Amino acid sequence: MKIDGVAHRSIWPAEHGRSVHIIDQTQLPHRFVTSELATPEEAATAIRDMWVRGAPLIGATAAYGLAMALARDPSDAGLAQAAAMLAATRPTAINLRWALDAVTASVAPLPEDQRAAAAWAKAGEICDEDVEVNHAIGRHGLSLIREIAAHKSGGEPVNILTHCNAGWLATVDWGTATSPIYQAHDAGIPVHVWVDETRPRNQGAGLTAWELGRHGVSHRLVVDNAGGHLMQHGLVDMVIVGTDRTTATGDVCNKIGTYLKALAAHDNGVPFHVALPSSTIDWTVRDGLREIPIEERSGREVTHLTGLTEDGRSETIAITPPTTQATNPAFDVTPARLVTSLITERGICAASAQGLASLFPERRAAS
Amino acid sequence: MKIDGVAHRSIWPAEHGRSVHIIDQTQLPHRFVTSELATPEEAATAIRDMWVRGAPLIGATAAYGLAMALARDPSDAGLAQAAAMLAATRPTAINLRWALDAVTASVAPLPEDQRAAAAWAKAGEICDEDVEVNHAIGRHGLSLIREIAAHKSGGEPVNILTHCNAGWLATVDWGTATSPIYQAHDAGIPVHVWVDETRPRNQGAGLTAWELGRHGVSHRLVVDNAGGHLMQHGLVDMVIVGTDRTTATGDVCNKIGTYLKALAAHDNGVPFHVALPSSTIDWTVRDGLREIPIEERSGREVTHLTGLTEDGRSETIAITPPTTQATNPAFDVTPARLVTSLITERGICAASAQGLASLFPERRAAS
Repeated sequence: MKIDGVAHRSIWPAEHGRSVHIIDQTQLPHRFVTSELATPEEAATAIRDMWVRGAPLIGATAAYGLAMALARDPSDAGLAQAAAMLAATRPTAINLRWALDAVTASVAPLPEDQRAAAAWAKAGEICDEDVEVNHAIGRHGLSLIREIAAHKSGGEPVNILTHCNAGWLATVDWGTATSPIYQAHDAGIPVHVWVDETRPRNQGAGLTAWELGRHGVSHRLVVDNAGGHLMQHGLVDMVIVGTDRTTATGDVCNKIGTYLKALAAHDNGVPFHVALPSSTIDWTVRDGLREIPIEERSGREVTHLTGLTEDGRSETIAITPPTTQATNPAFDVTPARLVTSLITERGICAASAQGLASLFPERRAAS
Repeated sequence: MKIDGVAHRSIWPAEHGRSVHIIDQTQLPHRFVTSELATPEEAATAIRDMWVRGAPLIGATAAYGLAMALARDPSDAGLAQAAAMLAATRPTAINLRWALDAVTASVAPLPEDQRAAAAWAKAGEICDEDVEVNHAIGRHGLSLIREIAAHKSGGEPVNILTHCNAGWLATVDWGTATSPIYQAHDAGIPVHVWVDETRPRNQGAGLTAWELGRHGVSHRLVVDNAGGHLMQHGLVDMVIVGTDRTTATGDVCNKIGTYLKALAAHDNGVPFHVALPSSTIDWTVRDGLREIPIEERSGREVTHLTGLTEDGRSETIAITPPTTQATNPAFDVTPARLVTSLITERGICAASAQGLASLFPERRAAS
C-alpha cells in the first residue's frame, strides 16, 4: 500500500537481485526505517528480532533468506542447514516452515548451479501469490462494505472496527482484514476505521493506525475497552479482523480480545467478519476452544511499554512495581456462532463446516 | 485496609484536629507518599490534581476542606465561598457536591464560633458512614464468595475478576467491589483476583493491583483483552465491579470496558455482580444506555503513558506518532439483563426495578 503517496510492499528485492529490503517494524510507528538483508543470517535476525512479523511476511523473508544461502552454498547439506537455521527463528510460525519447504521442494531436484536463481524466483512467486490472495480477499470483502455504503446517506462513512494488525505490514501487501478497507478507500467509498490499540503489544496503535494513516484512510485509535460502547451507540457498521488459525468448523483463533469484540458485535447486531487466506485454515481441528493451545507470553509485555518521550528519546517504562505479576495469554478463540462470515480468497462463506466445504469442496473428503 | 501489615484509611485527621493526611495517589503504584492538607486550598488542589480520587474519598476530602475554611472564616459568606471553590474542583463529581451540601446544612444553623468544630465532626461522620456502608456491602458480598468456596476442593481459591479500581483507595476504607474480597481474605477464604489493567488510565494496574498486593491478597494483572479467554477456560468464578451510577432499573454505568466483561460473563455462565452504595443509584434514570451521557476524555490519555524507567526516573512516553488521533469514552453502560445481582449496603438484589424496590421500598413511591 502507499506510504505518503508512494506504493510499497513490506518486502522487495534489490535491483541487482542479491538482497531484499524490508521495513524495520520494531521502529514503527515512530520511525520509518528500511533495512537491506543480504545474507541468510541477516534474514534470520530480521525474523527472530521481529523487524518483520506476520505469518505471510515471515514466510517470504525466510524464502529469500534461503535463496541467499544457496547463492553461497548450493549443496544439499547447505540447503538443509540454512533451512533449519531459518526455521528455528520463530518455531511456532507455521507459515515459516511452509515457505522453507516450498523453496526446498522447488530447488532440490535441480543441479546445484541452478538452485540459487530458482530459489530467488520461487521466493518472488511466494510474495506474488500472497499479494494475489490478499487482493482477492479484499475484492470479496469490498462487496460487504459496498452493501453497507449503499444504505448510507451522502458522504457518511462506513464505520469499521478492527483489532490487532492484520494489515499490509503483516503480509506482503494489502493485508487480510485491511484489504477490503484499502480497496473501498481506493474505490472512493468513504470508510472510517476504529483501531483497537490491542494490548499488550499495541499492534493496533503502533502498526494499524500507522499504515492506515500513511495510506490516507480515515481512522481513530481507541482502547480495547471502547468497542462495545461504540457498538451500543451505532458507531460501528461492521467488524473485520484477521486470524492466526481457523478451524474446519469456523472457530477463529486470533489476538487476545477478539472474542470480546465478537460478543459485543453479536449483542448489537453488528456483522463480525474474519478475513483469512485459506492457508490459515487448520482442517484437522474441529473445536477451537478445546483443541487450540494458547501461547502464554511474558508478563513483562503487560507491565512494560516502550515509546517516545517528548524530546524524542525511546524509553521503556514500567506501569507497575516489580512486585506485580501479570498473566499474558496471547490469543483467544471466537466460537463460530459469533462469526457472521469468513472472507477468503475464494469468496465469502458462513463460519461453519458446511460453509467452508462450499468454498473448499476438495477438503470435504479430506476432513 | 492494610499496607504491609499496618491498617490505613485513605484519609485520616491529624492528631491535633486541624489538618488531614491523604495518600498522594498520583504517585502510586511506584511510590507511597502521604500528604498533609491544612487549608481548603490544599484540599482543593488534592481533589483537582487527583491526589485523591473516587467519589466517596473526594466527598470526604471536600468535607474536611470546608471545615478548614470555616476555621479561618466561619461567616455565611466564607462558607458559601469555600463551598463554591471546592465544588468547582471536579464539576461532575456528584458526591463532592453532596458532601459539601451535607456539611453546609449541618453548620448553617449554628453560631459562627461553633461552625468549624461542627464541620470537622461532620466530615468525620461522612468518613465513618462511608466505611460502614462499604463494610456492609462487603458483608453481603462475602456470602456470594462463601457459596462458591463451599464447592471448591481443599485450598483451591475462588477466582474473582474485577475491572478498574473500586477499591479502598477510591473510598475511605474497604472499597466497594473489593470489600467482599478483603472480607473473604480476612476470613481465611482463599481468593485470587484477576485485575484488569483498565486502559486508558490503568487504575487496575496502578491502584487495584497495588492495594490488593499490600493487603496480601493473591492476584494477577491481565490486559483488558484477556478476561473473556479466562472465563472461557473456567478460570473465573465470579466478576465483581463497582459503578459510577446505577439506574432505577439496574443498568450499570461504570468504567469503559465493563460491558465487554459482562457480555463474556453472560456467555460463560459466570455470575456478574456490581457492588454499590445506594447513594450512587440514580432513581430518576430508567434507561442507562439512552439517558446517561458518557464523558469523552482527552485522546492523550490513550496515546501517552507515564511510568518508571529501569533506573527509577518517571517518564511520559507516546505510543503513537502525533498524527494519530484517539477517541476516548470514559464509561460504558452495562444493561441490567447482563447483571446477576447488585450488592448494596442493605443486601443483595436483582438488577431490576423490582429488585431495587425490594431493598429500597421507600423509593418505590418516589420513582
